Amino acid sequence: MDNFTFYSPTYFVFGKETENQTGKYVKQFGGKKVLIHYGGGSVVRSGLLDRVKKSLDAEKIPYVELGGAEPNPKSGLVYKGIELARKEKIDFVLGVGGGSAIDSAKAIAFGALYDGDFWDFYKGKPVTEAVPVGCVLTLAGTGTEGSTDSVITNEDGMYKRCADGDCIRPKFAILNPELTTTLPPYQTASGIADIMAHSMERLFSKTKDVEITDRLLEAVLLTMVKEGRRVIKDPSNYEGRANIMWAGMIAHNNVTGVGRAQDWGTHHMENELSTTYGCSHGAGLAVLFPAWMEYAIQTEDVSRFVQFATRVFGCQMNFEDPKVTAMEGAIAFKNFMKELGLPTSISEIGGKEADIPTLAKNMFHEAPNHGNFIKLTPEIAQKIYKLAL
Amino acid sequence: MDNFTFYSPTYFVFGKETENQTGKYVKQFGGKKVLIHYGGGSVVRSGLLDRVKKSLDAEKIPYVELGGAEPNPKSGLVYKGIELARKEKIDFVLGVGGGSAIDSAKAIAFGALYDGDFWDFYKGKPVTEAVPVGCVLTLAGTGTEGSTDSVITNEDGMYKRCADGDCIRPKFAILNPELTTTLPPYQTASGIADIMAHSMERLFSKTKDVEITDRLLEAVLLTMVKEGRRVIKDPSNYEGRANIMWAGMIAHNNVTGVGRAQDWGTHHMENELSTTYGCSHGAGLAVLFPAWMEYAIQTEDVSRFVQFATRVFGCQMNFEDPKVTAMEGAIAFKNFMKELGLPTSISEIGGKEADIPTLAKNMFHEAPNHGNFIKLTPEIAQKIYKLAL
Repeated sequence: MDNFTFYSPTYFVFGKETENQTGKYVKQFGGKKVLIHYGGGSVVRSGLLDRVKKSLDAEKIPYVELGGAEPNPKSGLVYKGIELARKEKIDFVLGVGGGSAIDSAKAIAFGALYDGDFWDFYKGKPVTEAVPVGCVLTLAGTGTEGSTDSVITNEDGMYKRCADGDCIRPKFAILNPELTTTLPPYQTASGIADIMAHSMERLFSKTKDVEITDRLLEAVLLTMVKEGRRVIKDPSNYEGRANIMWAGMIAHNNVTGVGRAQDWGTHHMENELSTTYGCSHGAGLAVLFPAWMEYAIQTEDVSRFVQFATRVFGCQMNFEDPKVTAMEGAIAFKNFMKELGLPTSISEIGGKEADIPTLAKNMFHEAPNHGNFIKLTPEIAQKIYKLAL
Repeated sequence: MDNFTFYSPTYFVFGKETENQTGKYVKQFGGKKVLIHYGGGSVVRSGLLDRVKKSLDAEKIPYVELGGAEPNPKSGLVYKGIELARKEKIDFVLGVGGGSAIDSAKAIAFGALYDGDFWDFYKGKPVTEAVPVGCVLTLAGTGTEGSTDSVITNEDGMYKRCADGDCIRPKFAILNPELTTTLPPYQTASGIADIMAHSMERLFSKTKDVEITDRLLEAVLLTMVKEGRRVIKDPSNYEGRANIMWAGMIAHNNVTGVGRAQDWGTHHMENELSTTYGCSHGAGLAVLFPAWMEYAIQTEDVSRFVQFATRVFGCQMNFEDPKVTAMEGAIAFKNFMKELGLPTSISEIGGKEADIPTLAKNMFHEAPNHGNFIKLTPEIAQKIYKLAL
């Protein structure tokens, strides 16, 4: 196990009707003038935004609003938010929605305090200062409610990058699983794929002797298999939604990832799929992870994949040829993605073989390093994209 | 799953030689005059105390010292520490040692700010104000490094009670597994039993549909079976020690226990064993948990115990008579405790049947409620103590 530090000071408020406490927590964490950032659509229609505003009114906390966050959130709206935050002298940013609204809220929060272009932080500059952020989560998946990162798509070239810093962990996060029971199945399934992928990026590590974090990662994965299956059949199932929502936080506040090298190559390759073809991030991961695993099983030591196959999907160990077991795990994961209704090939999301050189080239734009278990080169990335065709 | 809040803002610094950073973190968390509280013995002999003091010197932070914390720490030393803290105008308390030194440090930290008798908080008054606490851990087990609680024995009557409050979570915790490699086997084993018991007190719950926390609890338990066996055979094994140390924190900062009723009856019954017979807390738990499980399997729904048996100890499910499987789990746990070298009966720690009425009576002194999965009465407690004879 490697040396590490771990610090996760977010105050989590979990359960039914908890969004009505939003104002109380904004006040507790010092917010006096709030920018509410949300997507629109269901957040407005469901009455959630009104309930959040009512809770701020109850605490006499003034706010301004910025709607319009879309899946794969764009830089343009972040610039607008930063301008608004400065003009209105905002001292707290509240993201209400899924990962997109909250990731944009984080970008606005550090962009507002920075004299230069906020995109600098998505080119690798560490985030060290931000207006405090809180959130009300409506979709389990990205884990942004407890994480240090924010993913935004730059509209000038359409590429997706990640910024990171301890100061953008939300001060508080309101997690009400009821808010997720009306999600369309594709979004639910995409969130499940993302949560599983967050665990797999950490599980497939060359660091030895990390049993406790292995077991915690497998705990998340086992839960997703059980509860994912349940909510896809019965979307209104509160208990299934609740288990998935808490697992989504656990999967990405890094309590499961400390002391070990992590990969993240598949996530980075996926960014090209969702920006190019407009699929959800989770759908892109469902397409790519089986291919990445197949490539890794062909080229690397298979022990991690055998462990995944037997512990997560209950595959029987083939002691004479562990590679067979390893591939059974990759196939079981792919089948589970299909069962959730997700695509598992690039062709299903509208891509074709001729696009692959461009996908592999673009992911290295402003970002030379990808992957750790497998160090990606443009050539290796092409091979993996091809396996996913 | 029940509604819950979760807040664990401790900054964890984990790995080799991390105790040399103690001064840096005291400074970061605002300490300007420190009381170092430790046990003595190995903390001094090993040079750990000197390294900690050197790190404070390097930051020019003055300190006073109070040694002498013993296993099952006593109220007398806490009174002494409170007096010293007030006299020296201490603004930070640093516990260096195992659970005893750190639990006493917590008691000194809130006692110093309280006009009345600090024992009031061990009679149920919630702790709401304390001098900041940090710690350097030398024994994995109690989980106090990331928890909100402190357990002290009142010398006036020799009874052990627990105080609790968010403000006594350590601001930072230094966890260096190297410091645990020289522990005597009995202390190592006692810590392992305590970590497992922390998970079992949460696992045996009547709250339904808590798959994610079930799986996290089982992750800790599975890790303890693997790594516990390893370090008992090979005490100097760093990797085994590291996995156990991080598991010990995970087992008790409550990330595994949110959204579900917890039991804690066995812990409360154990307090009487360690105060009466002077055994370690972990040894008392090894004695009592198999008996508590046997009683529960006789009187309650067995599904939780069947899950424990199959998922943690790999017992084969008896579909015709699940109770058989449930008991196999209890026996497997007892056998594992024996394998670690711990006692598994009251007679092995020097007790006898005639003591039982007094044990059962004393645990209700100043504390009327014990247990949740099984609500304990003095009569039920007697039955469980008898099963452990």
